Amino acid sequence: MTPDDGLTPRPEHRFTFGLWTVGNPGRDPFGGPTRELLDPVDSVHRLAELGAWGISLHDDDLVPWGSSAAERDRIVARFRAALDETGLGVGMATTNLFAHPAFKDGAFTSNDRGVRRAAIGKAMRSIDLGAELGAEVYVFWGGREGTESAVAKDPRDALERYREAIDVLADYVVEQGYDLRFALEPKPNEPRGDIFLPTIGHALHFIGTLNRPDMVGVNPEVAHETMAGLSFVHGVGQALWAGKLFHIDLNAQRIGRYDQDFRFGAEDLKEAFLLVRLLERANYAGPRHFDAHAYRNEDPDGVWEFAAGCMRTYLALAEAARRFDVLPEVREAMAAAAAPDLAEPTVDGADAADGLKAEADGLDALARRGYANERLDQLLVDVLLGVR
Amino acid sequence: MTPDDGLTPRPEHRFTFGLWTVGNPGRDPFGGPTRELLDPVDSVHRLAELGAWGISLHDDDLVPWGSSAAERDRIVARFRAALDETGLGVGMATTNLFAHPAFKDGAFTSNDRGVRRAAIGKAMRSIDLGAELGAEVYVFWGGREGTESAVAKDPRDALERYREAIDVLADYVVEQGYDLRFALEPKPNEPRGDIFLPTIGHALHFIGTLNRPDMVGVNPEVAHETMAGLSFVHGVGQALWAGKLFHIDLNAQRIGRYDQDFRFGAEDLKEAFLLVRLLERANYAGPRHFDAHAYRNEDPDGVWEFAAGCMRTYLALAEAARRFDVLPEVREAMAAAAAPDLAEPTVDGADAADGLKAEADGLDALARRGYANERLDQLLVDVLLGVR
Amino acid sequence: MTPDDGLTPRPEHRFTFGLWTVGNPGRDPFGGPTRELLDPVDSVHRLAELGAWGISLHDDDLVPWGSSAAERDRIVARFRAALDETGLGVGMATTNLFAHPAFKDGAFTSNDRGVRRAAIGKAMRSIDLGAELGAEVYVFWGGREGTESAVAKDPRDALERYREAIDVLADYVVEQGYDLRFALEPKPNEPRGDIFLPTIGHALHFIGTLNRPDMVGVNPEVAHETMAGLSFVHGVGQALWAGKLFHIDLNAQRIGRYDQDFRFGAEDLKEAFLLVRLLERANYAGPRHFDAHAYRNEDPDGVWEFAAGCMRTYLALAEAARRFDVLPEVREAMAAAAAPDLAEPTVDGADAADGLKAEADGLDALARRGYANERLDQLLVDVLLGVR
Amino acid sequence: MTPDDGLTPRPEHRFTFGLWTVGNPGRDPFGGPTRELLDPVDSVHRLAELGAWGISLHDDDLVPWGSSAAERDRIVARFRAALDETGLGVGMATTNLFAHPAFKDGAFTSNDRGVRRAAIGKAMRSIDLGAELGAEVYVFWGGREGTESAVAKDPRDALERYREAIDVLADYVVEQGYDLRFALEPKPNEPRGDIFLPTIGHALHFIGTLNRPDMVGVNPEVAHETMAGLSFVHGVGQALWAGKLFHIDLNAQRIGRYDQDFRFGAEDLKEAFLLVRLLERANYAGPRHFDAHAYRNEDPDGVWEFAAGCMRTYLALAEAARRFDVLPEVREAMAAAAAPDLAEPTVDGADAADGLKAEADGLDALARRGYANERLDQLLVDVLLGVR
Repeated sequence: MTPDDGLTPRPEHRFTFGLWTVGNPGRDPFGGPTRELLDPVDSVHRLAELGAWGISLHDDDLVPWGSSAAERDRIVARFRAALDETGLGVGMATTNLFAHPAFKDGAFTSNDRGVRRAAIGKAMRSIDLGAELGAEVYVFWGGREGTESAVAKDPRDALERYREAIDVLADYVVEQGYDLRFALEPKPNEPRGDIFLPTIGHALHFIGTLNRPDMVGVNPEVAHETMAGLSFVHGVGQALWAGKLFHIDLNAQRIGRYDQDFRFGAEDLKEAFLLVRLLERANYAGPRHFDAHAYRNEDPDGVWEFAAGCMRTYLALAEAARRFDVLPEVREAMAAAAAPDLAEPTVDGADAADGLKAEADGLDALARRGYANERLDQLLVDVLLGVR
Repeated sequence: MTPDDGLTPRPEHRFTFGLWTVGNPGRDPFGGPTRELLDPVDSVHRLAELGAWGISLHDDDLVPWGSSAAERDRIVARFRAALDETGLGVGMATTNLFAHPAFKDGAFTSNDRGVRRAAIGKAMRSIDLGAELGAEVYVFWGGREGTESAVAKDPRDALERYREAIDVLADYVVEQGYDLRFALEPKPNEPRGDIFLPTIGHALHFIGTLNRPDMVGVNPEVAHETMAGLSFVHGVGQALWAGKLFHIDLNAQRIGRYDQDFRFGAEDLKEAFLLVRLLERANYAGPRHFDAHAYRNEDPDGVWEFAAGCMRTYLALAEAARRFDVLPEVREAMAAAAAPDLAEPTVDGADAADGLKAEADGLDALARRGYANERLDQLLVDVLLGVR
Repeated sequence: MTPDDGLTPRPEHRFTFGLWTVGNPGRDPFGGPTRELLDPVDSVHRLAELGAWGISLHDDDLVPWGSSAAERDRIVARFRAALDETGLGVGMATTNLFAHPAFKDGAFTSNDRGVRRAAIGKAMRSIDLGAELGAEVYVFWGGREGTESAVAKDPRDALERYREAIDVLADYVVEQGYDLRFALEPKPNEPRGDIFLPTIGHALHFIGTLNRPDMVGVNPEVAHETMAGLSFVHGVGQALWAGKLFHIDLNAQRIGRYDQDFRFGAEDLKEAFLLVRLLERANYAGPRHFDAHAYRNEDPDGVWEFAAGCMRTYLALAEAARRFDVLPEVREAMAAAAAPDLAEPTVDGADAADGLKAEADGLDALARRGYANERLDQLLVDVLLGVR
Repeated sequence: MTPDDGLTPRPEHRFTFGLWTVGNPGRDPFGGPTRELLDPVDSVHRLAELGAWGISLHDDDLVPWGSSAAERDRIVARFRAALDETGLGVGMATTNLFAHPAFKDGAFTSNDRGVRRAAIGKAMRSIDLGAELGAEVYVFWGGREGTESAVAKDPRDALERYREAIDVLADYVVEQGYDLRFALEPKPNEPRGDIFLPTIGHALHFIGTLNRPDMVGVNPEVAHETMAGLSFVHGVGQALWAGKLFHIDLNAQRIGRYDQDFRFGAEDLKEAFLLVRLLERANYAGPRHFDAHAYRNEDPDGVWEFAAGCMRTYLALAEAARRFDVLPEVREAMAAAAAPDLAEPTVDGADAADGLKAEADGLDALARRGYANERLDQLLVDVLLGVR
């Protein structure tokens, strides 16, 4: 692989990996770990070598829960040194509000007020860490905010408590003078039967109810929308349209299954292509963050093959998207599909209701044309397969 | 069945049926109709006899597309007379923007500007009809607003056009002085591969971007959220929390399947119970609207069994919910689950960040308690099965 | 609750629980255990008190992997004593071929021949234990027999190896003179991306390819077929029709989600009713085995509420099924649905092809009747809700 | 595109299309047709021009139900002439047992014995047509054989009737001396709530219960297994392993949705690649049959773009599969994954149980290796995207 085939990751591509992703030891509900835990400092070095821009982390990924203040400071300093040495940045930081058994009924929406308060406190500490490490974005994934037995929580109360927690934490950031934006990460289910804020849409709406809506966006994840069979491209499109795509989690997933977090591109290459094309066309400037992990049957070497593969496929798809958009056949098919016309306003100031009503009589004539979607979609497949 | 067993529908229960629901002739993608079309006037009479409060309709359900102005007026007058005679009301009206082949690429988001304009014009005419008939709510279901080949529409353009259309129509209602509110009905897919505004959440967010957000709410449908495996109770909860539950479509559906629109209660009785309980506790005052149809292997008699069954099950579940909420064992289990505590604010004005941070050290102690969800959920099952 | 309300479990109901079910400590992919591990002997005593007939186990549930022969014998003797003391039986035994990291690529279908041989060896040891404890049925759940990257295994090779392993083990049972039947437990996915023998159907077919097909049946699980959205009642029906229902795993699950293993009846009460009705009508004589666990937010007391709830709901549904089948309205609706006629042969020996061909001309007349499925299904709902 | 780029379909590729696929007029549950019906003779000519080998048909696709004997003969003769003129063959024929309203409760498993007999009669007539046209395979898709309300049919009775019907029809074929094999086409749901024989596995098992099992195989369809989220490649693998892949239906589908029947390759290119690779490696000799249709927003030209696209993508994937299998990096990764070793028997005649049991002690050592699945899967992605 030569450096100029366009498939070699470089810092300017802004690829990031969670410490917990390359560090995933391969535990699952039916079996224990298959790989050793990695030292976060080693992960930093390996990711730098592979061409990543940065890392992301939960508080507990770096500083094991229960560490003393002195241990914490020592760990953080050593980690900081590794970042400085490699030039890696911190794309985002977040709080682990799911692993401790106290969060078994929720964190910000636990029925136990003591747990809710402890969750906010833990998030504050973790925000301090994120700010100290210079994270761009602070993510909230409410994995335990949900129910198996829905009768145990009035969803209106739960949303009220969720809002309260985010408001309190946004105030905290402002009071501390941190330069941090929040991004909420929706997920429909797992580990809870049903999770509050299950989709990009629910999270976008929720943001509008906050005291500081401008400070909060979303962190959509391929696997999460895909579990519910929703179009990730449409969802990210709505977030971009709203100016709320603050971060993104890239991976792969089959619909209607447990959370798989496969290597980016390992499933549904067409959707992955459309996603990359959308991000690039929208000039998304945030981290391209991989929240994925190697298959459980991999050894440590496989982990780095996995990480390299995530970035390589992103770059290959970005290149395919560029190629697609300049092909004359594609431009022609786009025109036949009237795709550019969708950007044109439907009415103008001069339109009167009576005129529009009259135009409805033209439906039969309007039904005759086709939209060349087969041609366009086949061109996409051709480009994706490299046969055009 | 005596009138006082609590299972007999009466107008004060506000049950409504779409003309297209009892009138569904049993056509599906693999076979033609199995029942005759019904005269809407006959449906009005039958529904009144069964105890419904009202009906709902698409423009074309009542006035076949292509009717002359004179025919339209005659049809409407005859229908109006049936409503007057029976005392039935019109719960909601809506526009058929999906059946005409001109809408094959979308209505408000068709790539063809002419189609978009015709769709707005058709909606205006249909709003006139809805207002004339005294509809409470005007629904928009954008069944054709979507894609199979996502490359053919930039989702940001599509949402922009969708917003434009709703804004124009809201202005129209205000200009005409109609007393109508809008309700958007989300759906994830079918008949399009992926539909814009796929869930309650996406629709609630979209409403916040409109020029007249106060005028617009949602019309969630059991089948639609359920197709994507989302919790309908959580979704309706978010709509109620936002003050946006303007209408509701009741039916039944299995997850991950074609749109089934089964009789209310025919699938997932626990979720149906939780839904009815939520609506009743929230004092939802709108129509209880059944958007469902009889199994295709029914004859005309079966249609009315179907309609009676929808209402009967709603009433049985409402009664079970009342019984559940007053049971001493339930109150005790609710307390053990700390369900009422979720309504308590988590922090108060006097809370300092340092104090909250310190409380995080208490997580181990907070992990010990249980939440009695098994007991509570089994009580629910007991009540549902009538064994308690 | 008095002992004669019909809802009190007794040994003759043949309810069994896996040691791993009541013993489940509440670990999941995002968090550690929330409950202490139980001593299997304590579980035996508690289950006996609750009215269960027996227990089931994986080898490692009782004898931790790596125990010495002496430890093993001591553990088994102590467990045996508890069984003798309580009178509990062993419904089934099975091998844990999924937890050890060596099985990360499969057990009987691992690409590594050494792993495949070790898996067969471990199964032989475990069969010895099962026979020693007097298990009725020996179950094989091939949770690791599958792929994430399907290119890594030719499915034909995998099935060949799977068949070889079961054949070898069946021979072993015969050689040892054990009185054991095998039951294969299908599952579509999790913990592998796709598992071989994903459904009841695939397993039934596979059994027909074995050297000793008569010795092998299936152990269907509610959650497993339901994950894929398949009808569990139809699947169990096919197994019964084939004479192959050797064991059954009862629990609850929502479609298209991670493996939930909820309390029996906690989801989809109608399907649970139909299942219980089918088992009872078919005089299924095997254990009614609960392969489920308490919600993760339960404390130890909740575990026994969970176990009691599984049995209580089964009994309540069995009682409802009896009530349903004797209701005159149901008999009438069954007749209107022509349900009994489906048991009548369609043709008889005297039928000539020409006659049958001619009958096809009668389709229009045959289309007129209805099948009263709405009436029948509403009666089912009425009985289920206890309002009839 | 020159004829020798390997992407030009030729008769030896054995591509076939159903008359109902290119002839699909674009009707769906929410809207009427968007395209004119095609004359089957025109379809034959167009498909021949595009390079297809043959066509397939339902009886009613060619001869409208209700045609007189004379009309039938005239239609068949004209169609036959078109086949002769173009050299196109008939890959398979089948009976339409779903469109007529008489089949609303089932055909071979209708509760009405008269319907069951008429269904058998219609199938006999249609088999006569298939034999007359020289079809290789006769397919049975039991789209109406199922339930919405499962209580209305005992599944054991339904399977018994299903078996009876296939047995009677197999006898008929033998008696008539037709050279026809049967292929059963499984589907999980739609148009029925749940369909009997929902998957490849269920159908394979059912075949084993027939009087003439050797005469009957399966006709799996991408969309059908995929609706239920099952691995199509594993399913086809099981059919090939059993020697039962008599025919195949190629198209594309997203999991957990209505039956989409998209252009082959329009969804999940990786699964499509693996499927084509499996078929080619297994030397599948039957028709490559496309059971798909153009997007509904296409005009007539789009239909032929659709048809060309199906074949082009198949050829591109076959070419990619060949390229993949000869790449040295792939051979190396396959070896690292131990993929070839899965073809080796696990035990040999000399193996004693004790030896195998002892090998289980080696699990810890066996756990250390990795299986290089990330490397292998990324190579697959590279080849698929044409970057290697």
